[in-house]
Amino acid sequence: MTNALPQGATIGILGGGQLGRMLSVAASRLGLKTHIFEPGANPPAGQVADAVTTAGYEDEAALKAFAASVDVITYEFENIPTAALDILESLRPVRPGREALRVSQDRITEKDFLTGLGLKTAPYAAVDDKVSLDDALQSVGTPGILKTRRFGYDGKGQSRIMAPEDADKALADMAGAPSVLEGFVNFSHEVSVIGARSADGQVACFDPGENVHRNGILHTTTIPARLNISQRTESVILAGQILNALDYVGVMGVELFVTPEGLIVNEIAPRVHNSGHWTQQGCTVDQFEQHIRAVAGWPLGDGSRYADVVMENLIGDDVDRIPQITMEPCSSIHLYGKAEAKPGRKMGHVNRVVK
Amino acid sequence: MTNALPQGATIGILGGGQLGRMLSVAASRLGLKTHIFEPGANPPAGQVADAVTTAGYEDEAALKAFAASVDVITYEFENIPTAALDILESLRPVRPGREALRVSQDRITEKDFLTGLGLKTAPYAAVDDKVSLDDALQSVGTPGILKTRRFGYDGKGQSRIMAPEDADKALADMAGAPSVLEGFVNFSHEVSVIGARSADGQVACFDPGENVHRNGILHTTTIPARLNISQRTESVILAGQILNALDYVGVMGVELFVTPEGLIVNEIAPRVHNSGHWTQQGCTVDQFEQHIRAVAGWPLGDGSRYADVVMENLIGDDVDRIPQITMEPCSSIHLYGKAEAKPGRKMGHVNRVVK
Repeated sequence: MTNALPQGATIGILGGGQLGRMLSVAASRLGLKTHIFEPGANPPAGQVADAVTTAGYEDEAALKAFAASVDVITYEFENIPTAALDILESLRPVRPGREALRVSQDRITEKDFLTGLGLKTAPYAAVDDKVSLDDALQSVGTPGILKTRRFGYDGKGQSRIMAPEDADKALADMAGAPSVLEGFVNFSHEVSVIGARSADGQVACFDPGENVHRNGILHTTTIPARLNISQRTESVILAGQILNALDYVGVMGVELFVTPEGLIVNEIAPRVHNSGHWTQQGCTVDQFEQHIRAVAGWPLGDGSRYADVVMENLIGDDVDRIPQITMEPCSSIHLYGKAEAKPGRKMGHVNRVVK
Repeated sequence: MTNALPQGATIGILGGGQLGRMLSVAASRLGLKTHIFEPGANPPAGQVADAVTTAGYEDEAALKAFAASVDVITYEFENIPTAALDILESLRPVRPGREALRVSQDRITEKDFLTGLGLKTAPYAAVDDKVSLDDALQSVGTPGILKTRRFGYDGKGQSRIMAPEDADKALADMAGAPSVLEGFVNFSHEVSVIGARSADGQVACFDPGENVHRNGILHTTTIPARLNISQRTESVILAGQILNALDYVGVMGVELFVTPEGLIVNEIAPRVHNSGHWTQQGCTVDQFEQHIRAVAGWPLGDGSRYADVVMENLIGDDVDRIPQITMEPCSSIHLYGKAEAKPGRKMGHVNRVVK
């Protein structure tokens, strides 16, 4: 732990949502403080952080003061503006690094990177206008899904093309944004691997979880996932390959489709991931602590699992069920401190331990 | 949950040490905020709290402003000055209530209360001076231990009397403070029960843990404790009896000596307890969340255990072992964010899950 942050050091976190909140709590377990940078007022993470800066990513003075007050910088979301990163990087280490952000901020760049590693992805083609969409429909075929190349999450910025006649509406849905047509993959289920890599190149992965989505948003993750031993091994090796190729430091979520032809990478997220929330109950070191350990230069923890868990997201008015959930046996509730429940908004999650 | 605190409500916590810190983190999991009141600057709990008041317990204005800013008040230590309590109680509910504090702040009052319930304690007698010490030595006998009636913790304010000739030194050690002579109990081991009682009188206890002390400070707690089924049942019934008799709301630690003649109550603590830290790894709801649930008027959680755990305290320069501990398999480290490691100071703990 020669270059490890000492007790009392401060981790700067870009983004003050639930991921930043749970990262902050994990940092506290290691005797580290956090400072949250977030444009929105009263961020959930601010309730459990040592300091909060409320400022926009274009506010150079605020970015500089924030960087000066912390020892290392990390983030809870990948869409950090490039200009802000330039300022922050010039003052403090930003982990995971620039390459991970560059690759994951753009769906085409990400897929080019993954196929370049020899990994399988859905068939894809860039779409910028009617002409390139026609070409893409030729090469990728239908059904497919048109997605904006950047800034998509939780099913936002996506439009299905079940047959060629849906193409015009889908293109209009993109509102002129550079896009990508992805072919449908015939998968039996989706799993995700939460992998981690330390500053000195150590790699560790949590057990893969099996994901079920509803309305484009993660609904449940179940551990263990339905995978045979070779799929399980392949999923972990593949995650390690991605982490090493990016010289990555921190936790990454890797979503995989399970198909008869093998594992296909759906997408990667250079941060702690919703499908890794189950680790809070099933492991002695959860994904949040694993991420903090990595960015703080600590050795990775033992993320081996000692319980079966089903994680369920609480979305929008699911929070009305809190009174019942609090009385359930063997369940651990995690609420994010958000003032208002809106449709599609992630308000919390429950980890149910299966004995 | 009719009278339960809603999402975003604030819990005031008196005391900003590690217990307040872990209570604050637990509150965040339930979507609740915390406000720490602590005389010392930069309290560990302040690093993960929504607000901190740095003021003394004699500062009426600060106490009033603190109370006005929170929905309910709880505490991490039992020695809260009475005048401060009077002010706080007049403005907001204080949980656990006054009776629990009155009983546990004085070793004689506590033992009178326990024996009044028909529970066994060590033989004891009040000691105020040489004359009453001689009487006490007659009735209690030697070996015994002379303790101040108030403000003792972690072996502080205690002096052993192995034979009558140690009496004068022991009395001098008390420096004139009202004291109690407790007879030695011939016990095989010590266990503790962490019990909880909700605002509507529901009672739940965690599995008893077995404690080992070093230099008067808790060293390890091992779950499960060595208890047969009738001792296990008795320990839980006895804790429930104490909680009900005090009309208690919150978590309480009950330390018990295991003897051939049955269970003997060593002492009770009206707060979360060091010997309950193992619950952070072995249960879906830990002692900190259980306490927050109770004081917030929520139903108690299911504290049933799904793993065996050994908790070890990190005292003073034990923190030098952190680099090794972070690399241990199946161990979860919890550090308190204290700036300086002093001899006897609790710096953190490790929960080792036994698979």
